Amino acid sequence: MSSTFGEIFRIHTYGESHGGGVGVIIDGCPPCIPVSLEDIQYQLDRRRPGQSEIVTPRKEADTAEVLSGLHDGKTLGTPISILVRNTDQRPSAYEEMAVKYRPSHADYTYDAKYGIRAPSGGGRASARETIGRVAAAAVGKQVLDKIAPGIEVLAWVKTIQHLEANVDPETVTAETIESNIVRTGDPEMAADMIEHIKKIRSDGNSVGGVIECVIRNCPPGLGEPIFDKLEAELAKAMLSIPATKGFEIGSGFSGTLLTGKEHNDPFVMKDGKIRTTSNHSGGVQGGISNGETIIFRVAFKPTATIISQQDTVTDKGENTTLQGRGRHDACVLPRAVPIVEAMATLVLTDHLLRQRAIMRV
Amino acid sequence: MSSTFGEIFRIHTYGESHGGGVGVIIDGCPPCIPVSLEDIQYQLDRRRPGQSEIVTPRKEADTAEVLSGLHDGKTLGTPISILVRNTDQRPSAYEEMAVKYRPSHADYTYDAKYGIRAPSGGGRASARETIGRVAAAAVGKQVLDKIAPGIEVLAWVKTIQHLEANVDPETVTAETIESNIVRTGDPEMAADMIEHIKKIRSDGNSVGGVIECVIRNCPPGLGEPIFDKLEAELAKAMLSIPATKGFEIGSGFSGTLLTGKEHNDPFVMKDGKIRTTSNHSGGVQGGISNGETIIFRVAFKPTATIISQQDTVTDKGENTTLQGRGRHDACVLPRAVPIVEAMATLVLTDHLLRQRAIMRV
Amino acid sequence: MSSTFGEIFRIHTYGESHGGGVGVIIDGCPPCIPVSLEDIQYQLDRRRPGQSEIVTPRKEADTAEVLSGLHDGKTLGTPISILVRNTDQRPSAYEEMAVKYRPSHADYTYDAKYGIRAPSGGGRASARETIGRVAAAAVGKQVLDKIAPGIEVLAWVKTIQHLEANVDPETVTAETIESNIVRTGDPEMAADMIEHIKKIRSDGNSVGGVIECVIRNCPPGLGEPIFDKLEAELAKAMLSIPATKGFEIGSGFSGTLLTGKEHNDPFVMKDGKIRTTSNHSGGVQGGISNGETIIFRVAFKPTATIISQQDTVTDKGENTTLQGRGRHDACVLPRAVPIVEAMATLVLTDHLLRQRAIMRV
Amino acid sequence: MSSTFGEIFRIHTYGESHGGGVGVIIDGCPPCIPVSLEDIQYQLDRRRPGQSEIVTPRKEADTAEVLSGLHDGKTLGTPISILVRNTDQRPSAYEEMAVKYRPSHADYTYDAKYGIRAPSGGGRASARETIGRVAAAAVGKQVLDKIAPGIEVLAWVKTIQHLEANVDPETVTAETIESNIVRTGDPEMAADMIEHIKKIRSDGNSVGGVIECVIRNCPPGLGEPIFDKLEAELAKAMLSIPATKGFEIGSGFSGTLLTGKEHNDPFVMKDGKIRTTSNHSGGVQGGISNGETIIFRVAFKPTATIISQQDTVTDKGENTTLQGRGRHDACVLPRAVPIVEAMATLVLTDHLLRQRAIMRV
Repeated sequence: MSSTFGEIFRIHTYGESHGGGVGVIIDGCPPCIPVSLEDIQYQLDRRRPGQSEIVTPRKEADTAEVLSGLHDGKTLGTPISILVRNTDQRPSAYEEMAVKYRPSHADYTYDAKYGIRAPSGGGRASARETIGRVAAAAVGKQVLDKIAPGIEVLAWVKTIQHLEANVDPETVTAETIESNIVRTGDPEMAADMIEHIKKIRSDGNSVGGVIECVIRNCPPGLGEPIFDKLEAELAKAMLSIPATKGFEIGSGFSGTLLTGKEHNDPFVMKDGKIRTTSNHSGGVQGGISNGETIIFRVAFKPTATIISQQDTVTDKGENTTLQGRGRHDACVLPRAVPIVEAMATLVLTDHLLRQRAIMRV
Repeated sequence: MSSTFGEIFRIHTYGESHGGGVGVIIDGCPPCIPVSLEDIQYQLDRRRPGQSEIVTPRKEADTAEVLSGLHDGKTLGTPISILVRNTDQRPSAYEEMAVKYRPSHADYTYDAKYGIRAPSGGGRASARETIGRVAAAAVGKQVLDKIAPGIEVLAWVKTIQHLEANVDPETVTAETIESNIVRTGDPEMAADMIEHIKKIRSDGNSVGGVIECVIRNCPPGLGEPIFDKLEAELAKAMLSIPATKGFEIGSGFSGTLLTGKEHNDPFVMKDGKIRTTSNHSGGVQGGISNGETIIFRVAFKPTATIISQQDTVTDKGENTTLQGRGRHDACVLPRAVPIVEAMATLVLTDHLLRQRAIMRV
Repeated sequence: MSSTFGEIFRIHTYGESHGGGVGVIIDGCPPCIPVSLEDIQYQLDRRRPGQSEIVTPRKEADTAEVLSGLHDGKTLGTPISILVRNTDQRPSAYEEMAVKYRPSHADYTYDAKYGIRAPSGGGRASARETIGRVAAAAVGKQVLDKIAPGIEVLAWVKTIQHLEANVDPETVTAETIESNIVRTGDPEMAADMIEHIKKIRSDGNSVGGVIECVIRNCPPGLGEPIFDKLEAELAKAMLSIPATKGFEIGSGFSGTLLTGKEHNDPFVMKDGKIRTTSNHSGGVQGGISNGETIIFRVAFKPTATIISQQDTVTDKGENTTLQGRGRHDACVLPRAVPIVEAMATLVLTDHLLRQRAIMRV
Repeated sequence: MSSTFGEIFRIHTYGESHGGGVGVIIDGCPPCIPVSLEDIQYQLDRRRPGQSEIVTPRKEADTAEVLSGLHDGKTLGTPISILVRNTDQRPSAYEEMAVKYRPSHADYTYDAKYGIRAPSGGGRASARETIGRVAAAAVGKQVLDKIAPGIEVLAWVKTIQHLEANVDPETVTAETIESNIVRTGDPEMAADMIEHIKKIRSDGNSVGGVIECVIRNCPPGLGEPIFDKLEAELAKAMLSIPATKGFEIGSGFSGTLLTGKEHNDPFVMKDGKIRTTSNHSGGVQGGISNGETIIFRVAFKPTATIISQQDTVTDKGENTTLQGRGRHDACVLPRAVPIVEAMATLVLTDHLLRQRAIMRV
């Protein structure tokens, strides 16, 4: 188990979906940063269950308690510990799953690795684990606002299965995205996406899609080659989110269809700054931000939990079938938008502090 | 700069493209592993320039010298230091580039980050940097062979621009891949790909494509959730390779078009083992290997170096043009195949040792 | 702030002396290890205030709550989060200290470093911070018992100011040490030490002393040269404990008075094992355990809190005086004994797991 | 094996005493720092064998080659790789030692840990390993000079066995220390010490002693509680040096004989700065530098190599005797002075950069 992320601005998360609670310690946060409980709770509310009609109806308030590291609304420079209690637990709903491996879940692999697993609610593999990340990133956002004002991290649902939103990455706003419960940047497509998710859910089925994310006004110079290149860190951050299967930055996979003459981004002076006239690079060159908008996309598979009968095996190695039930998301993307933003924010905050450490005098 | 990769089996690389040399230290290698200089040199030869008519004609033998850590052909458990001297240096070829930023290269971002850069040959951002990775992975391969015999890491060129190879990931062999200079797993497509690269080069242009990689016979249980999930580590590893723009595992981006009922991988007992009847998961569930073949793809952009005139700026902030020249790869993929394998091998070796540390008694 | 200790068996602590609570996350603990809440609480009780007439009369039960990582009394392999709420807080007792720097405390240096500090109770610099370490080590002890049965970590008070105990490191028992409230291994000296501490306290003064610690039955081969030598890790662990000023292993400082002929430990075969006939090395040679008893000593300065008037300055830079008051330990050593054992246990557990990772096949 | 030291300014060392060479990579060095080869070579010359009549007569020039990371005499921000070739190797001198364990050396423990070891010259456990540390610290010194001008790290021989130098830590100069081959700060004692070492050597015997070290003009605020306290990091750094057995800071072990009233360091304003009127703390309070002179002492045991017959065992487990011979130091302290300074410099450089990362806006 490796529940630490970041080098300077480091977070350590813990918690099973059922049990005492989930939470995070943030270590390495600069002192004297204003942080309010509201900043944290706002982000947790964006990812919590029960927030709209297209997400799981589980009822968890996900109320954050800050145990340490803040005084009079400012960071002390000491570890910030944030705890969210677990409340809505129905272990009985998981009795069958305790012995039958749910297909495309982590039940089997946890048993294979550890020889033991939390028998209910997905344990540590539950998406509930991301609460600590989101809470920590809410603090990270305050650090960015203070040290590098103007940086903006914004994600939205780009596709739900075959439905694709039309979004301008340079101009879309948080207000637009939050104005619809599916969290797409294209209000006209929102209704179709919501309708599609409802239909899929009524079929006992599930869907996935792609989340797109931009980082606007990122200063040049962030990213630590050779191995901690900014895109490598973002890729790791995104692929650590449950249900993700792919990551691409800038031109991504479709960039492989262009030639170098088409793909290269010419430099030009603009308002006294070095800029590029196109952005196939996606804001990163050689692993380091170049001052252009960073843009990347993350693929989410359809939710593994479906309400139908599936072939599987027991933990004793017998073939069997499993009838899915429970209260789950037919599509995780609306709730994953704040998680993608959170992981991007954590990468940025960490790299901003890393760059401070080595900056030239 | 962060030139360390891995937690237990850790590598530290160094070196600019011009200068004394490039190399690597491997720390945390188990003792008593048989390693020969030939093992290392064979892999370096697969990535070196001048190896075929479709790669850069630069002449560098890339001869490895082992400075420490081996005795009588066995690892001592101490750091293994491997040095490759730089030989074919023509600084004069880079005089213009010392003041003009090459588009979609790292010249500008290194200056933005460090305020200084090696003026010739791309410095630390040169693909020459990957020599240390490949040398280290040659040692890692011996560790895998000893501790988890049967694991096989195999990569091939899947696409060159619009040309797509037809390859069976379960059966393709190293011999087939090495039988053609483009290193695709589809001998029938090889000639077309080679022809295309030659044509692109004669146009002073460049192309990219996709490399596919499998890990066969990986034992279940590797990967360290929450943040060091196996796919997250592979994603980081791949995106740290120069010129990469995307990573996907299993069904990847196209998996977002399926529903959960189509995408889930049912479990079934087979020869006394728990297996899945499909493999959309790509061999990893919940961040941990499940015993199926791990399969992933990496997008490489077209080479940034092209032999034509491009708009750019100088390091003094003046608009100008740059006429590309020099001896470069019109397509990096044939030489990137061993690099993809190397990074996958490093991830695997490290996670195999990490799993040993915490395995239950 | 760096509140992480260990490489594989890693702990992350948090918490100010006043505030929501203090606690720890243990990450990297092997699965299937039996751990009871009683194991943890027993050790916390050994370090808590109010346990005897020679320690601070503060009343804190220091009750541990395990929030995650255990199921049915066994470790899951996931992060184990342990929380101890703060209860006995009297912020008013610290009003004067909020503006006047207490001599030889960390008030001034925290302000110098962070520009802010928790104004009461010593904040993060309070010895209350060690609760997380002790709780984590109670888990580590179970790991040692399971993986390397027979290892025994035992500390005792060797000196209180000029009073020195006569203790045989090879035979002293936990029962003897726990039989007296000063926790020395020499029952005859215990009464004198207790008397001395009481007298010093009645003078409003304080004293320090030396704690000695042994690790018996440690297998050969633990320790990771060059930098993570076993003695180096122990030294760091001990000097991270509040109020420590020195560390020595084996012959230590007095070994500098011997010649090599006197100091070298001859090897001899004994019961089929390689042993040494003397143990000036203190159980470690070249940074690696050699199978002999590891023995080291830690110097603790007299408690900085004294009940008398002292010269100091305010946080505004004015000379002033401070009249000490409050409920503090006139001698920290009795309560520091379990802390020394805890840090030694954490080092051992981590190195045992590190050695497993790289052990030869 | 763990050959990495530091978090931001990180060094990775490698090399056996016999073999291709020894060296270091420095990663995380800020860019644009002036570094000359002379800076590095000067420090290597201070630790090399054969430099005077009281050290080992082995003839090794220890000439440094910088392979990467510097351009036109300035750091690039990329890894700096420094190599020193091994030259004076006489494997035949070690044939007996290949099968007989030298008492109080690391031969046995390396075999116990790794099951294999370099058979000649002490391998990785040789003090030759410290070359990489000293070279790296020479670069670190330039970083300190640039970022925190005025910091001064100075060590000297305080005692040789029973001979104790009289040195004023606040005023002693590098010139005084370098003026005598034993590197003590007390010129009057130097002759006695030199005489004593010569006599001990002629007896085929060896001696140890204590090195004292100061850091003058260290800014307040360095050190990262809770675990990476400045004194904890120094303790680890020092105990990682071969032949060390103890570390103490400020009042150290003798401070345990004082009461709190005697030991506390009162604060007072002086020239507008917060200072203390005594310095029992040794320049560190709560793990953080307080602006006073940091002072610590390190115990070195008598050299394990002695020219006389000793009881020991073979690697096959048979009792035997070993007749010492070879060219070794009868006292390592004169050559250890630059090593102590080097490790202190590495700790300081790293912590200076760590503090930059989190400093408040």
